[in-house]
Amino acid sequence: MDSPLLLDKLIQQKKSFLCVGLDPDPEKIPKPWSTSIDGIQEYLINILESTLPYSVACKPNLAFFEVLGSKGWDLFNTILSQIPADVFIIADAKRGDIGNSSTQYAKAILNLAPVNAITVSPYMGFDSVNPFLQFSNKWTFVLALTSNIGAEDFQLQKLTSGKFLFEEVIIKCQKWAEGTSGVLGFVVGATHPEHMELVRKHAPDTYVLCPGVGTQGGDLQEVIKYLAPRVLINLGRHLLYSDANEDPFKAANIKAALIQAEMAKWF
Amino acid sequence: MDSPLLLDKLIQQKKSFLCVGLDPDPEKIPKPWSTSIDGIQEYLINILESTLPYSVACKPNLAFFEVLGSKGWDLFNTILSQIPADVFIIADAKRGDIGNSSTQYAKAILNLAPVNAITVSPYMGFDSVNPFLQFSNKWTFVLALTSNIGAEDFQLQKLTSGKFLFEEVIIKCQKWAEGTSGVLGFVVGATHPEHMELVRKHAPDTYVLCPGVGTQGGDLQEVIKYLAPRVLINLGRHLLYSDANEDPFKAANIKAALIQAEMAKWF
Repeated sequence: MDSPLLLDKLIQQKKSFLCVGLDPDPEKIPKPWSTSIDGIQEYLINILESTLPYSVACKPNLAFFEVLGSKGWDLFNTILSQIPADVFIIADAKRGDIGNSSTQYAKAILNLAPVNAITVSPYMGFDSVNPFLQFSNKWTFVLALTSNIGAEDFQLQKLTSGKFLFEEVIIKCQKWAEGTSGVLGFVVGATHPEHMELVRKHAPDTYVLCPGVGTQGGDLQEVIKYLAPRVLINLGRHLLYSDANEDPFKAANIKAALIQAEMAKWF
Repeated sequence: MDSPLLLDKLIQQKKSFLCVGLDPDPEKIPKPWSTSIDGIQEYLINILESTLPYSVACKPNLAFFEVLGSKGWDLFNTILSQIPADVFIIADAKRGDIGNSSTQYAKAILNLAPVNAITVSPYMGFDSVNPFLQFSNKWTFVLALTSNIGAEDFQLQKLTSGKFLFEEVIIKCQKWAEGTSGVLGFVVGATHPEHMELVRKHAPDTYVLCPGVGTQGGDLQEVIKYLAPRVLINLGRHLLYSDANEDPFKAANIKAALIQAEMAKWF
């Protein structure tokens, strides 16, 4: 999935924008599934397979693997090796450092062959983002306007130019990506429908990774209205965890089917 | 080193603000030292021991360990276990995500017993920074004004309030840290002496981690003038790597001694 055109095609084929967030929290994995490394692995693969008919992408969040130590890194690699080849894989890492160090982060994650994309924080500017954009046919989703309440603290501050900080991030990153061999995307939370026209004004054709539908309360149809067709809508906890008396994989399958049916209305 | 007062004392005892940056780049480790995991471990420990008479802190950069995969995490843990107890350890991780995920990152790194502090990116706001501040007696150094050229892209943008973005970060984080059991610090690069009065205006007593002296060109005496005594001045590549015909550990020892002698003038 090395070009936006291939992802476009997959989305059209499946009539889906669904990205499955893999945030394996041992405290939330229901009994009787084991919360050992092997148990978590089995649980995640089952969730992925249950939702696969309706999804186009998945997004493992590195935080939930790192907390397991070096075994978590091995688990992350094992999971990657078990994801079918036609699933677009976003490593949700939110890295960003001075150039020399960003290059190491980029190598650490984008050199893992199955990974298509990484999420990156823009706070440190050009030389923190640019190393990721040098990886041919790999995607860099830069945090622009995130789904959490803290987005108001800095991202929604107005600059003297009259623009929000997140707009400045989008405008500058679009320039930085020109002529690079990487593919640029942005992270924009579903909790901000009022700002999505601005996102598309500055980045009309750029893919947007959109968390915040589901547990965080964002509205699916609003997101699609403003951002489709180049959008990946992430659902994590909503799909991963279900009521104690349910089969979590059957529940995930049903929830994914319902979400995809909602998405299919757009096509 | 669970309170600023203890770090104050160590700095006074050693007449040093020196923090040794551990960025082990296999391409830069000189022959005949091996660039195997064991070789890197031996090299870093030797550098630490050579500089220890003159340093108060060290800062392993996670990027350089992650790039080695799960073995890199094991190496990071081994290095931690070999650092003497009176060295203040900053895990340079630049993490930051929504609350739930930031908590995992904080657990992954701050629960490692020898680690005293972590670096955190503020872009996602309150609920991304706050989980780190909940770890009793652990320190959170928030990126404010970084040493790299990219600091100009966003951190030095002026807000409509008339303040720079980095000032807004400092002011808000100071409020967020009030009443928490963690200790707040900031990262401010040595390449910005013209803004250091502003840093101290908003955060007069807060520790500042200051990279950018040495390879990046920041001036040591300028940093000390504005930020002492609550400052840790990081030198990484300058200490880690020397000319091919030198003993790198002897060279690191001599360079650290010269730097500490410069620092001692302040006391």
